[in-house]
Amino acid sequence: MGYSEKDLLEHLKEISLLNETIGLAHWDMTTGMPDKANEQRGEMIAYLSGLSYELNFGEKMTDLMTYFEDRTNELSVLAQQAYEVAKKEFDLNHKIDKESYLGFQKALTQAHGDWVTSRESKDFNDFKASLSELIQYTKQFIPLWKKDEVTPYDVLLNQYEPGMTVEKLDEVFKTLRTGIMEIREKIASEGVVPRTDFLYRHVSKEQQRQFVEKVIADLGYDLSRGRLDDTIHPYELTLNQNDVRITTRWAEEDFQMAVLGTIHEAGHGLYEQNINSEFAYTPLASGASMGIHESQSLFNELVVAGSENFWKRQYPVLQDITGETFEDIDFETFYRGLKQSQASLIRIEADSLTYPLHIIIRYEIEKMIFNEEVAVEDLPTIWNDKYEEYLGIRPENDLEGILQDSHWSGGSFGYFPSYALGYMYAAQLEHAMNKEIDIQTTLASDDYSAIIEWNKHHIHQYGASKKPNWLIKQATGEDLNPNYLLTFLKNMYYSAYQIEA
Amino acid sequence: MGYSEKDLLEHLKEISLLNETIGLAHWDMTTGMPDKANEQRGEMIAYLSGLSYELNFGEKMTDLMTYFEDRTNELSVLAQQAYEVAKKEFDLNHKIDKESYLGFQKALTQAHGDWVTSRESKDFNDFKASLSELIQYTKQFIPLWKKDEVTPYDVLLNQYEPGMTVEKLDEVFKTLRTGIMEIREKIASEGVVPRTDFLYRHVSKEQQRQFVEKVIADLGYDLSRGRLDDTIHPYELTLNQNDVRITTRWAEEDFQMAVLGTIHEAGHGLYEQNINSEFAYTPLASGASMGIHESQSLFNELVVAGSENFWKRQYPVLQDITGETFEDIDFETFYRGLKQSQASLIRIEADSLTYPLHIIIRYEIEKMIFNEEVAVEDLPTIWNDKYEEYLGIRPENDLEGILQDSHWSGGSFGYFPSYALGYMYAAQLEHAMNKEIDIQTTLASDDYSAIIEWNKHHIHQYGASKKPNWLIKQATGEDLNPNYLLTFLKNMYYSAYQIEA
Repeated sequence: MGYSEKDLLEHLKEISLLNETIGLAHWDMTTGMPDKANEQRGEMIAYLSGLSYELNFGEKMTDLMTYFEDRTNELSVLAQQAYEVAKKEFDLNHKIDKESYLGFQKALTQAHGDWVTSRESKDFNDFKASLSELIQYTKQFIPLWKKDEVTPYDVLLNQYEPGMTVEKLDEVFKTLRTGIMEIREKIASEGVVPRTDFLYRHVSKEQQRQFVEKVIADLGYDLSRGRLDDTIHPYELTLNQNDVRITTRWAEEDFQMAVLGTIHEAGHGLYEQNINSEFAYTPLASGASMGIHESQSLFNELVVAGSENFWKRQYPVLQDITGETFEDIDFETFYRGLKQSQASLIRIEADSLTYPLHIIIRYEIEKMIFNEEVAVEDLPTIWNDKYEEYLGIRPENDLEGILQDSHWSGGSFGYFPSYALGYMYAAQLEHAMNKEIDIQTTLASDDYSAIIEWNKHHIHQYGASKKPNWLIKQATGEDLNPNYLLTFLKNMYYSAYQIEA
Repeated sequence: MGYSEKDLLEHLKEISLLNETIGLAHWDMTTGMPDKANEQRGEMIAYLSGLSYELNFGEKMTDLMTYFEDRTNELSVLAQQAYEVAKKEFDLNHKIDKESYLGFQKALTQAHGDWVTSRESKDFNDFKASLSELIQYTKQFIPLWKKDEVTPYDVLLNQYEPGMTVEKLDEVFKTLRTGIMEIREKIASEGVVPRTDFLYRHVSKEQQRQFVEKVIADLGYDLSRGRLDDTIHPYELTLNQNDVRITTRWAEEDFQMAVLGTIHEAGHGLYEQNINSEFAYTPLASGASMGIHESQSLFNELVVAGSENFWKRQYPVLQDITGETFEDIDFETFYRGLKQSQASLIRIEADSLTYPLHIIIRYEIEKMIFNEEVAVEDLPTIWNDKYEEYLGIRPENDLEGILQDSHWSGGSFGYFPSYALGYMYAAQLEHAMNKEIDIQTTLASDDYSAIIEWNKHHIHQYGASKKPNWLIKQATGEDLNPNYLLTFLKNMYYSAYQIEA
């Protein structure tokens, strides 16, 4: 039987609409669904996942993927690109039988519920069984996913960042860790520790919301095509280009968390909103990789919200919204306070300097899970030991430790390194952008559009139509280079800690 | 090919899960979806509606409905009841071709968007084309829906309230209208008009929310199996028995609207939460009819929130939450103020005495649309003329007039009379309940469970497994009788207006 381009695009549109539906079910589950509806929502998502399996790996999709394998020349450029991305996903998963696929989807829902429960009890034991099940499923899938990767964990890394390996990451993370340790030692021995008490003054949720909605709009995130909600673990979720949702967690005695968190998620949102609209309803309408996605959220968090010039404009706005709260805090004190670096237990509250260490810990543990034989019940102790070794502090309970992240409960093993890649990409993009645009002058102005447009032009517009390494090389003229990040961090922290470079 | 009960119940469960998904998409669309995502949401709902059509009227369903037609004796009692409800719905709609069905779903999404737009412009012209399209579709469907009904509009009435006809309603509404007019004349000539200025004092949304969440919990609505959100037009929507959502619209200078509105919607929610849980994932897990559903919301609004004893307990709570706002208003003044009756333009803001007149107007217009030939562009004038005739006031724009309700934009023609039936059923239930339970003493106490349990026992638990007339006769010992409502309204309003009965 023959197929036309229209058949292919219509099928991909159905997949896209069903993904959107499942996305909405997940968003709702994490932003206010009634407590007791978890089991029923599991049934709904299991049902939709069954439909999704059929669309993604059933007869029609198999026929379409086979038919066009030697006929991509019959397709328009856009349809060719869409076919390639769809084919890659198809090849990855069509070997998984439907029973395992649906079992995994159901295990994910169970794991989300157990993770929430275990956070309440602060006890890893309430999550252990679910986590083991997800690990078992993943180990069962790895041989089916494997192409030419060397180790099992390489297979997982490759899914989030094509071409990434344990060999490369071991080296890059060694450079990063050493460099960060040097900076930490230098500021500990020579730096003037910034004053930070005022960062914990009460700022109401409403005040924070007013401020961040203004800031993320300035940064190009379009709230008429998105929304900002409350959740436990912040994320960005795209239903479609006109419905790109971000979430945050507010702490009234620690306004930084939601302010920086929202600026971060808005970076993800901005990326999705700016993808070429012709890619709508195809698999091209998403990011190029998790690492590239993080480069955009971290560009916002690190380059923009890490900049003294940015805060020179925005601090008066915050002061205005918060009344007398920061009346006695001058700009220099405020900015240096923001740049304080301190070992902390919670990744999403970590400063930019220590953050990569949190990632390295998770990377090493994931490597142990998939490349070595480690007992799941030993993981909390391993986690705590590594925090003590790398950051000098030890969690007092599992909520401060291994239960803090949602990734594993979502079955996302191999995702964490993307954050560190995002840091390195962001600094590398900043270096390249600065050759064409005076970033600091732009951030000192009331119009950030030059920066937004540069990222849109070099990264956003392409969606998933290009590979990460193509994008980085095209945008910066070279491959991934971790030294830009170390230089960036040195400049920022030495200045905040009043150290001569 | 043979089928088992399991096959039937599994198919009905799929339908139920897909309905839940579509329900979530609608809920989200009306409670905060980004403004610009309307078109995309239309695509999503159209896709899901296509799946729904296939499940409800496709080959599998046709086979199942045919197979069990003469074999209901092979089924358990529950499956028999579920089959009967499903078969009725199947017979109603399977004659509609898929193209028309999907076209109608798409027209509904368009109409919702146009209705929202027209409310902003206050101009019926922005909604006219959509409304005409929905009317045309409905007129096209009526011959397919028709069984033994006499007039086209009877066909619509029968869908919401089985057995209801224009002939019956014309008579009942004549009795109601005459009776209400007499009460209105009497309180106008002999009554002491209550003081009401304090009803428009500022009560913040947060204060209102705190109060109503307490009240609806007292009344048995379980917020751990539900949630309360903001919308333009309030409604209750059941995803499943553990996820029964209600919505409201807050007015800070008119707290009555959201307070009474939420108590009303909680009555719907309570009904759905109390349906026999064995009915889950079958068509039995819903109300018996729209009229019966309204009897439960209106029982809350009319019998409970209309009671002096209820407010004797709840007014001090409201006073406590609102600080000094009502410090100078004694209980008698407060309660009489709530009971003021005044002609108004907006149905959902109307008091219990004038409310049925708003319904009679809509009933007469719907009858004109489907049983006579009336031009859609003439409807705003007809609407306004009727308000002038029955209530003595005339809308100044379409937002105050024909654009106020969401029902027509949702394709629900023939629904409005359910509200008036709900009033009559509620008063009739109150009369019967009072023979077994001293309602006023219960409302004066801090435990309403006797009332909640009576309604649960006589109405809620049955879900859709029984017909409206069976329920009313079983609960009250007689068929629908409009005189209980007139007696109830007389007692309530004569007392509030200090008239000797």
